[in-house]
Amino acid sequence: MKVVGLVTEYNPFHNGHRYHIQQAKAVTGADVVVAVMSGNFVQRGEPALFDKWTRTQAALANGVDLVIELPTFYAVQPSHIFAEGAVRLLAAMGIKDMVFGSEHAEVDFLKLAEQAPSVASGHAFQEKNQTFAQAYATQLAEETGFVLEDPNDILAFGYAKAVLKLGVEMTLHPIQRVAAGYHDQGFADDQTIASASSIRLALHKGKFEKVQSVVPAATLAALTTAPNTIAFETPFWQLLKYRLTTDTIGQLGQVYQMAEGLEHRLAAVTLGEPGPKNYQNFIKTVKSKRYTFARIQRTLLYTLLNVKVDQMQAAMQDPYLRILGFTDAGQTFLSQIKKTVTLPLISKVDQNLAKANLRLDYKAGKLWQMLASDGGQQQDVTRQPIHFVHSTKADGGSTNEI
Amino acid sequence: MKVVGLVTEYNPFHNGHRYHIQQAKAVTGADVVVAVMSGNFVQRGEPALFDKWTRTQAALANGVDLVIELPTFYAVQPSHIFAEGAVRLLAAMGIKDMVFGSEHAEVDFLKLAEQAPSVASGHAFQEKNQTFAQAYATQLAEETGFVLEDPNDILAFGYAKAVLKLGVEMTLHPIQRVAAGYHDQGFADDQTIASASSIRLALHKGKFEKVQSVVPAATLAALTTAPNTIAFETPFWQLLKYRLTTDTIGQLGQVYQMAEGLEHRLAAVTLGEPGPKNYQNFIKTVKSKRYTFARIQRTLLYTLLNVKVDQMQAAMQDPYLRILGFTDAGQTFLSQIKKTVTLPLISKVDQNLAKANLRLDYKAGKLWQMLASDGGQQQDVTRQPIHFVHSTKADGGSTNEI
Repeated sequence: MKVVGLVTEYNPFHNGHRYHIQQAKAVTGADVVVAVMSGNFVQRGEPALFDKWTRTQAALANGVDLVIELPTFYAVQPSHIFAEGAVRLLAAMGIKDMVFGSEHAEVDFLKLAEQAPSVASGHAFQEKNQTFAQAYATQLAEETGFVLEDPNDILAFGYAKAVLKLGVEMTLHPIQRVAAGYHDQGFADDQTIASASSIRLALHKGKFEKVQSVVPAATLAALTTAPNTIAFETPFWQLLKYRLTTDTIGQLGQVYQMAEGLEHRLAAVTLGEPGPKNYQNFIKTVKSKRYTFARIQRTLLYTLLNVKVDQMQAAMQDPYLRILGFTDAGQTFLSQIKKTVTLPLISKVDQNLAKANLRLDYKAGKLWQMLASDGGQQQDVTRQPIHFVHSTKADGGSTNEI
Repeated sequence: MKVVGLVTEYNPFHNGHRYHIQQAKAVTGADVVVAVMSGNFVQRGEPALFDKWTRTQAALANGVDLVIELPTFYAVQPSHIFAEGAVRLLAAMGIKDMVFGSEHAEVDFLKLAEQAPSVASGHAFQEKNQTFAQAYATQLAEETGFVLEDPNDILAFGYAKAVLKLGVEMTLHPIQRVAAGYHDQGFADDQTIASASSIRLALHKGKFEKVQSVVPAATLAALTTAPNTIAFETPFWQLLKYRLTTDTIGQLGQVYQMAEGLEHRLAAVTLGEPGPKNYQNFIKTVKSKRYTFARIQRTLLYTLLNVKVDQMQAAMQDPYLRILGFTDAGQTFLSQIKKTVTLPLISKVDQNLAKANLRLDYKAGKLWQMLASDGGQQQDVTRQPIHFVHSTKADGGSTNEI
């Protein structure tokens, strides 16, 4: 059994993801595909359009054999922590090959990572109107000649750094991705592959019919039946405004990633008169050149989740492998690794786990429900992994909760 | 200038309140009426139907000359703290006569208060399935023969205890009120006076036309034009559920009046599966014989306002006289007491006050806005007291913000 690992958000699952899965198998000769997938919130600090179960279902229907949840404390993070968390989970399952997209697939990212400056020295060079990532990229370019600026390259570099840091045996297989694909804002009617961000944009604009040609049947079905957070900004702002109004500055200052007095700015903007009209208005007002939009939004999400620095640091020390779903092949792989896996395998979350290790994912699931169009379904306690059974029918299979 | 003090909620202002004002003047011979009025939240822990400005306007149009806000830390409290706070404010203005309704106006409440057991000894007798008030009333009845059970009597007794405790010079004038009036749930179409609770009930049921005969023009105008919280339960539960889901048990345990592990019960009920459908459902599940509905609801409001024990205790040490509105006569009275008043007179709230003494009222105002049907108006910063000018016209006068 040859296994390949992917790191995904599937927000939402689209035809490009299916193509990526096929390529991953072709490049590595793998017969089992394991995807580590962000749960109910993605790296940019936003709720995923569909909950983790809906996206797991789509992934299993389209070539993934096992979906493991990337815990919130890894998933909603800057790329280097996100990447390190994902590599840690894949390595814990004994997976030795990773495939990922990159704008510069010809680059040996492990070698680049070996030559790269340490994070600490990069930080010293950060200028006032620069984000940390910009400062680091400037220094990396000076030392190696490589300009690290495309989103998939940045993640690829993160995987390589993580492999070195964790000392794990992992072969990295970058596959070529068209540069700037992530920021691509539109797609033509005859396209069958479009970026997730352009699909989200179309959905935000209510153009449901436009995405039909670029997503598979499972995603299309979700678009018409599943609860979603396409219009998350109104409830997100309502709850955030409430918390920023009622918590003290001292409480806000303890939130994870709340740095350099940002809590004062958040509270002052919220309580100003007449105050922000909506979330977009709020976030534009608090944004500065010092922080990326994603960084601000992640901090706001941690504010909303009321996650303090100490809780986050403790949680990150204690990762686990939460099984969201599998095919028959995925199930076979799971039974093979049962005795060698180096992190706890979790298939069911009870109230005890919800209060301990999985507290943050549990809270994130509850928050996702509050932001979803029709309340959504319970995300953790009472839920079981999806067992997806492929059939020979055109519809791609059937599903059982085990 | 002879002045009489009233303690009010005006939720909403109705014909019975106008009659009460006329009686107060008749009984005391006063020519100026000062009302201490709960702000945006009332004693039962609920948002007032209309904001404090709308209710001030109605009060000034119907015989009150000066409206002083009873701060949230006094207003949303059990009757003995509510009463003591109100007496403290009236006494600070040098007012020596209070008129209030009572189901037993023939009782000398000061004398009853002198004979009453201390609170501490009352507490020792509380049985498991008794509220504190029930335990205290049992003991009072044993020692004095008086059965303290009607809501206005309980407040009257509170005023008397406060007068004794604070050592202020205050003559109490109870006026007869029909027993059980507060709990009266209906009224006939030809009535011109109905209880506030029966009016609220009619409004909750959407029977706006039914209340026309029992409220004056100012309240009627508010019913059709002002933001209100008649349907507060849905947004209240939404925000409360959010806080009970995201705060830790440790944080919830620090909330004012959170006693005997109630925080565990609140969190467990909120996070249960499938969980409460709505606020009514939630509060019925958490209610026990040990606590009154009002006590639970006040604790939930303090949870929502994120008010901790230490903040509350500090706030209660630092009361003030917040002026919401006045007539010409009220203005004259204010200038007379300027040099003798024993608490700070506040007519305008800036950001500094909103962060210090008035923080709780300010937060309460912001929360009221979040619960109101159309967002409501800003409640503190930028607002000025209402100067109500009576005219000879039938409509009762005009209004200026000074």
